[in-house]
Amino acid sequence: MKIFNSEIRVKILATLYGREFCEFSYLKEKLNLTDGNLEHHLKILEKVNYIEIIKIIHKGKLKSIIKITDKGKESFRNYINELLRLSKEGVIK
Amino acid sequence: MKIFNSEIRVKILATLYGREFCEFSYLKEKLNLTDGNLEHHLKILEKVNYIEIIKIIHKGKLKSIIKITDKGKESFRNYINELLRLSKEGVIK
Repeated sequence: MKIFNSEIRVKILATLYGREFCEFSYLKEKLNLTDGNLEHHLKILEKVNYIEIIKIIHKGKLKSIIKITDKGKESFRNYINELLRLSKEGVIK
Repeated sequence: MKIFNSEIRVKILATLYGREFCEFSYLKEKLNLTDGNLEHHLKILEKVNYIEIIKIIHKGKLKSIIKITDKGKESFRNYINELLRLSKEGVIK
């Protein structure tokens, strides 16, 4: 499974990269995805240890919190920096 | 065909974005691709008018020059800027 061969997965990683944690519902709205579609891509990202999915109970409701791992952050940073280098636009730290 | 659902196509566009023109052989070496693989992705990018493929004869040899179009540049810029915005890393011009 090539992780970056999906615009949705790249955007999930981008969103998490700047925030560390996101609620499932935030990601879903931000990227305009269905529950099923987001779940599908999160499972793939979890499998390669780019994210962790943490279940919590908040005010009696079960919620999913998505956390990007160091491996996920490094991988996203390498991807975006390669694109920026190729396009001669510098890098992000 | 989702253009950005391919890491290779994104990298081809990134490389062209900073240069306007590239030789086929340059792209092939820079991105470490086979002739067939690069040709496959260039055809897809040509079909959506993101690039033009120009055949020239240079010192008696037929060469392919790849040019990114304004549409291709705009599309790549929008893609990378959306990723940078999502990850809170600013935009490229």
